Amino acid sequence: MESIQILGLVAGICTSSSVIPQLVKTIKEKKASDVSWIMFIVLILGNALWIYYGGSKSDIPIISTNIFSLLLNTAMLFCKWKYRKKTNKT
Amino acid sequence: MESIQILGLVAGICTSSSVIPQLVKTIKEKKASDVSWIMFIVLILGNALWIYYGGSKSDIPIISTNIFSLLLNTAMLFCKWKYRKKTNKT
Repeated sequence: MESIQILGLVAGICTSSSVIPQLVKTIKEKKASDVSWIMFIVLILGNALWIYYGGSKSDIPIISTNIFSLLLNTAMLFCKWKYRKKTNKT
Repeated sequence: MESIQILGLVAGICTSSSVIPQLVKTIKEKKASDVSWIMFIVLILGNALWIYYGGSKSDIPIISTNIFSLLLNTAMLFCKWKYRKKTNKT
């Protein structure tokens, strides 16, 4: 693997993993009212487009980090849906 | 401009602009205690690395959207610093 690819992967890990603290916070507190629906839907759409873009250029850092990011953002969206239902019940 | 470059730019606008709702919310409410410092520092580092990566591949969508994202994340970090001081004073 070329050094520039490693740098791309590190870049991708930084920008993808930034949602992890938010995800941990949401799971701990079991609430996500402060988090915007639109934000995560737009992010997921963006990740899907980046995966397509990376695929067309055979760019491993773009593809791999956006798949990772897509999974994290989907988990976040799932948490938002899950904890919203819980709040409504109580 | 090739259609794949336009697609890359759209992807970048989606993933970069996702921070705008958070920024607007923070400016409106004048508080950012729920927002993680580490998250934005890691994001800014990631953007800087992506700009370098994009530069080495002459990839316009990567460079331009990460410059945009870097500016937004820096603004967010500035807001967090600004509103934290305000809260301490009152």
